[in-house]
Amino acid sequence: MSQQEIKTILSKKIKEIDKILEEYLEIPSSYEKVIHEAISYSLFAEGKRIRPILMIEAYRMLNSDITGVKPFAAAIEMIHTYSLIHDDLPAMDNDDYRRGKLTNHKVYGEGIAILAGDALLNLAFETMIQGALEHNSILALQAMKVIGKAAGVKGMIGGQAIDLLSEKQELTFDTLHYIHEHKTASLITGALQAGIILSGGNSEQIERIKAFGYALGMAFQIQDDILDQIGSEEALGKAIHSDQKNGKLTYLSFESLEIAKEKVRYFSNQALESLAYFGDSAAFLIQLTNYLMNRSY
Amino acid sequence: MSQQEIKTILSKKIKEIDKILEEYLEIPSSYEKVIHEAISYSLFAEGKRIRPILMIEAYRMLNSDITGVKPFAAAIEMIHTYSLIHDDLPAMDNDDYRRGKLTNHKVYGEGIAILAGDALLNLAFETMIQGALEHNSILALQAMKVIGKAAGVKGMIGGQAIDLLSEKQELTFDTLHYIHEHKTASLITGALQAGIILSGGNSEQIERIKAFGYALGMAFQIQDDILDQIGSEEALGKAIHSDQKNGKLTYLSFESLEIAKEKVRYFSNQALESLAYFGDSAAFLIQLTNYLMNRSY
Repeated sequence: MSQQEIKTILSKKIKEIDKILEEYLEIPSSYEKVIHEAISYSLFAEGKRIRPILMIEAYRMLNSDITGVKPFAAAIEMIHTYSLIHDDLPAMDNDDYRRGKLTNHKVYGEGIAILAGDALLNLAFETMIQGALEHNSILALQAMKVIGKAAGVKGMIGGQAIDLLSEKQELTFDTLHYIHEHKTASLITGALQAGIILSGGNSEQIERIKAFGYALGMAFQIQDDILDQIGSEEALGKAIHSDQKNGKLTYLSFESLEIAKEKVRYFSNQALESLAYFGDSAAFLIQLTNYLMNRSY
Repeated sequence: MSQQEIKTILSKKIKEIDKILEEYLEIPSSYEKVIHEAISYSLFAEGKRIRPILMIEAYRMLNSDITGVKPFAAAIEMIHTYSLIHDDLPAMDNDDYRRGKLTNHKVYGEGIAILAGDALLNLAFETMIQGALEHNSILALQAMKVIGKAAGVKGMIGGQAIDLLSEKQELTFDTLHYIHEHKTASLITGALQAGIILSGGNSEQIERIKAFGYALGMAFQIQDDILDQIGSEEALGKAIHSDQKNGKLTYLSFESLEIAKEKVRYFSNQALESLAYFGDSAAFLIQLTNYLMNRSY
């Protein structure tokens, strides 16, 4: 399949995720208008929807009826979006643009941006709770546990905290590795793992998808660092060299571009090897992995 | 029972809540040290622990073994604490002191304070999920749904947003009422309702506890407004007239002190009437209601 063909399929899948997200946003009362607008502004900002797509496709390898995974797919994108809103705040990365649009606090002010992030995290769990009440509660709770951990202090938030504390100070390669593992790979792995759990996967299948998620997440993050250095500002929709601007160290602060590219290939191969276990049912995830590793945005 | 006697009992119950909270805080790795410290700083800042105490005591009216309610009691206090950390931020109320101590961002910086709040909200749900996996999952999920709604856009966050948007602009009495209902009464009612649900209460019992929670929450908030105007700075541990400082309107911007006190009595009586339904088992909650309405801090 060509990059263009998979891009077309992804566009369709992105629209499906948009529809799922709309389903789980409640109709606001007049008092809730502004906060609801701020939430929608960031939630429908043309995200790549990587995490919910990965979750649904992992689920689909074992179960073709995706009804039960939908609320969790919505939730993982809400969590990702809240983390971006808070990450962009002046007290954090202080970014004015995200995906080619002004960041949330630039439009709604810092206070509302903080609350919109809080609201999205809360709504993510509300959405999963409703999903758990409507479908298999025990599998749902197990998936929620995985997602909660992936998003928390032992996962994404832990990574954000070290990332923040490491700005403008000596950072070791080990610490950078911790940040990559926690800030990026953690939620990607959690999304995939939740997909397999919800579809009733066994412990061997769960282990394989975790290995896939970890390798994909690491490849994805190093590729991000490469694109931040060499990508075009236009294609990325955000300022390039933004990490350098913030005095942040990236993979390329420690390794040459060649070695970084080699690492992306290494982790991509690891990812593909883990997928092989799932046989033909992994066809789409294999295509997606290849696509993500060759992306220019 | 005298104010002093109930105060002694409450001190004991507060210590119990502290112990429960400690149980649900995970041991941090070295990377998690700072964020864990920031979380603990605010979580163990001598809070009144009103919400978990109310939840446990509501639960105890129907069930004396409180094992199943503990993770939820911890969670409601985590949610309350995260809301205080974010509420104190410069972009929100901009408060330097809380309960006689520097606010979280004054000690750890704004970025870590934002993340510590996020972490507490996330941990609250993680804690409830674990509780749901260990005890009655369906009752637990129903309680989680109530708490999630009470904390979200249709509850506390909605109240915070309107509170923020109303600063320094014309505020109607209706809007103030909305803020009180959502910012304060919502989480108190959610805590009580979750307690009854977890103990297996029926729909009539749930309705009565909701009515109690609403009346108690409203009385509590108006009492807060009164104390902010007439209380002593020392006893409150925070700057009084802080609402005025922020240009915020309170109940006393619309009504005289006399009418405000009358309203506290009115809602307290409503609260006590709803409790009467539970007979003798409500003895402690009755005492607590009387105590809270006569508090000076």
